[in-house]
Amino acid sequence: MELLRVTYRLEGNPADAEARGEAIALEQTVEVPRAVAMRDPFIQREIVGRVESIDEAPDGAQLVAIDYPVATTALDPAQLLGVLFGNSSLHADVQCVDFDPPPSLCEALQGPRAGIAGLRELTGVRERALTCTAVKPLGRSPEALADLLRAFARAGIDVIKDDQGLADHEFCPFEARVEACLAAAEQVADETGRRALYVPNLIGTPERVFAQLRFAEKSGARAVMVSPMLLGLPTFWELCHRRASVPVLAHPSHAGAVRYAPELLFGKLLRLYGADAVIFVGYAGRFGIPRATCAAIAASLRGGWHGLAPSLPVPGGGIELADVPEVVRFYGRDAMLLVGGSLQLEPGRVLERSRAFADAVRVASA
Amino acid sequence: MELLRVTYRLEGNPADAEARGEAIALEQTVEVPRAVAMRDPFIQREIVGRVESIDEAPDGAQLVAIDYPVATTALDPAQLLGVLFGNSSLHADVQCVDFDPPPSLCEALQGPRAGIAGLRELTGVRERALTCTAVKPLGRSPEALADLLRAFARAGIDVIKDDQGLADHEFCPFEARVEACLAAAEQVADETGRRALYVPNLIGTPERVFAQLRFAEKSGARAVMVSPMLLGLPTFWELCHRRASVPVLAHPSHAGAVRYAPELLFGKLLRLYGADAVIFVGYAGRFGIPRATCAAIAASLRGGWHGLAPSLPVPGGGIELADVPEVVRFYGRDAMLLVGGSLQLEPGRVLERSRAFADAVRVASA
Repeated sequence: MELLRVTYRLEGNPADAEARGEAIALEQTVEVPRAVAMRDPFIQREIVGRVESIDEAPDGAQLVAIDYPVATTALDPAQLLGVLFGNSSLHADVQCVDFDPPPSLCEALQGPRAGIAGLRELTGVRERALTCTAVKPLGRSPEALADLLRAFARAGIDVIKDDQGLADHEFCPFEARVEACLAAAEQVADETGRRALYVPNLIGTPERVFAQLRFAEKSGARAVMVSPMLLGLPTFWELCHRRASVPVLAHPSHAGAVRYAPELLFGKLLRLYGADAVIFVGYAGRFGIPRATCAAIAASLRGGWHGLAPSLPVPGGGIELADVPEVVRFYGRDAMLLVGGSLQLEPGRVLERSRAFADAVRVASA
Repeated sequence: MELLRVTYRLEGNPADAEARGEAIALEQTVEVPRAVAMRDPFIQREIVGRVESIDEAPDGAQLVAIDYPVATTALDPAQLLGVLFGNSSLHADVQCVDFDPPPSLCEALQGPRAGIAGLRELTGVRERALTCTAVKPLGRSPEALADLLRAFARAGIDVIKDDQGLADHEFCPFEARVEACLAAAEQVADETGRRALYVPNLIGTPERVFAQLRFAEKSGARAVMVSPMLLGLPTFWELCHRRASVPVLAHPSHAGAVRYAPELLFGKLLRLYGADAVIFVGYAGRFGIPRATCAAIAASLRGGWHGLAPSLPVPGGGIELADVPEVVRFYGRDAMLLVGGSLQLEPGRVLERSRAFADAVRVASA
C-alpha cells in the first residue's frame, strides 16, 4: 500500500502532541470517533492515517509525521488538498509543513510540462540566470503598457509578464492588452533580433480563465501566468494539464491566505500541480523571508522528485538593482530574477534601469 | 466613485501602522513605488487605495481601513480576492478582517440564489432550526452509506450530506453513491411521508465538479455541497451562478483559520459569492471558536446587505447531543445544526441517537 507522508507543526503543550497527532490522522481521513472508524477492518487498514513520528523543532514546536494511504486522495488534485490540510487547517495552532507524495501521486498529477528546460528553450537563454519584469501599474492603457514593454525588451530583459493585478478592466481590456503587448514584443524582436517572452496574466472564474487562455494562445502568446492560490489549485491543475499548450508561471498572490509552510507550498505543491516557473517573495525585498526558506524553496523546485521535471525558481517581492549580483550568486544560474516597479523609479529612465538589471544578471552569471 | 472598504489587522509597532497601511494601499492596487503611481493623475485618483482610518484593537493591534476604488476589482470574483488580500496575504503579520462591498459589487456577485427561504421551501421546515448530518466515514461502500442515510432519514433529520472527504474513490464511486443515497431517501419518503434532503459532495478540478453537478441534478439531487476554499472561490462563484440550478452548501474544509478573520470569510465572503448555507466550526465542539465569533458569523449571514438573500448558518465541528438545546438557543431558529460522527458512536444505535438529535432540535425550537 503506497503512503502519503504529511508533516504538521503543532504549537502548544508537547505532552499533547501524540493525542493531537492521532486526532489529525482521524480528522483528515474518516472524521468520526476512533471507535467508529475501527469497527470496519477495511477502514482501519486502508483509510485511517497513522502517526509515524513526533519530533521537536528547535523552537519547541512539535513536528508530527502522519502516513495516509494514498488511496484516500483518489489521486485527485482537489481531494489531495482535503487529505493534506482540509479540516485541520481550521485549527489555528496547526501548520502543514511538509509532504512526501508516493510515485503514483506524482504520476497522476504530472508536475511541470515545460519546466526549466522548456523555459530555457523558449527564451533561448541557456547558460545564465534569467531576467523577468512586469508591465504595470494597474490603471495604464494597453498602449502605455506596450510602450513600457518595448523599453524592457530593448534593454534585453528575457521575460516580461503582466502584473498579477491586470485583469479585464474597462480601462485596460484583456484582449487589447495581450494584442498590444505581443505586437510590441514582435516589433522589438524585428529591431534587435531578440524576442522577449511576453506572459499575459489570466484571472477570473474557470470559464473566463480558459477563454483568456484560448485567446492568448491563438494570438501567439508563448506562456501564461496565473495566481494558483487565488484561482484554487484544482483549477490550476486543470489549466496546466487539460487546457494549456504553453508553459504556465505561478504567481504567489493570495498564497498567504492559507497556512502551508512556504517551503511546502512554493517548493513542492506548485511543482507537483504543474507550475513551470514559481514566483515567490524572497529574502531580498519587502517581505522579509528568511534566506534558509528561499534556499529550501529553490532546492525543492530543482531537485530530483519521482521523475517530475524541475520548475524554475523566480524570486521577486522587491529586489533592488544593487542587490542583483548577490541574489544571482545565492540562487545560481537555474533561476529567474523578477524585478518589478523598481525599474520605473526614475522618470524617463526605464530603458537605462532595465538595461542595468539585464546586464547585472549577465555579468553575475558569467 | 464607489469604494470598497477593507480592514486589515496589523501586529507590530503601532508607530508603523500608518506607513504600513499606505504600503498595503499601494501593494493591493498598483504595486509600484508611490512616486511611480502618482505620476499619472488617473491612477492617483481612480486606482490607488487610500488609508481612511487607523484604530487600535483592544489587544493593541492596529486596525487599518483602506478604501479602494471598486473599479480595481473589475467586478470579477477572482480579481476581487487579489484586491482584498493578494500580495498582502504574504505578510505574516497582516490579517484581512473585514470588508464592505458597495452595491455594484453585490449586484455583480449576486450572493445566494436560494438562501434561507429557499432551503426552508426545499425541506418543508418553516418554523424551527434545521438538523443536518453526514454519511461517512470515507471507506464505506455506496450501499453502506445508503443504509446509514435510511437510519438518519427515518429518525427525521432534515438534511443529510456527504462527508466532505467523499470524492470519486474506487471503493465508493461518486455516481454509485449519489444514486444509492437518492434512492434510499426516496424509499424512506415513501415509508414516512417525509423526504430528507440528500446533499452530495462535489470535489475535483472544475471540469470534474461541473460534470458531477450535472450528474447529481439529472439524478434528482435537490442541493449540492462543495468546499469553496479548496476548489477556489472563483470556481465556487461560477458553480453557484453559471452552473447550478439547485442550492449550494459551503463546507469549511481548507479554509484555514488565521489569515482571513472567520467573521469575514464565513460571515461575508461566502455569502457574497453565493453560498445558500455556510457550514462553519462553532464554539461547541473540537475547534474552540469563541462564542462572539460564532454570533458575528450568524448575524452577518442573516443580516440585511444591499439586497442579498440571507444564507443559512450551519454550525458544526463536533456538537455533542447533550449540547443541542443550548446551541439552538444560541443561534435561534434560522440555523441548521450539523452533528456528524457522534450519531454513530454507539454500535447499532444510529437510529436512536439520530432521533434524539432531531427531537432535541424540535423541542428546543418550539
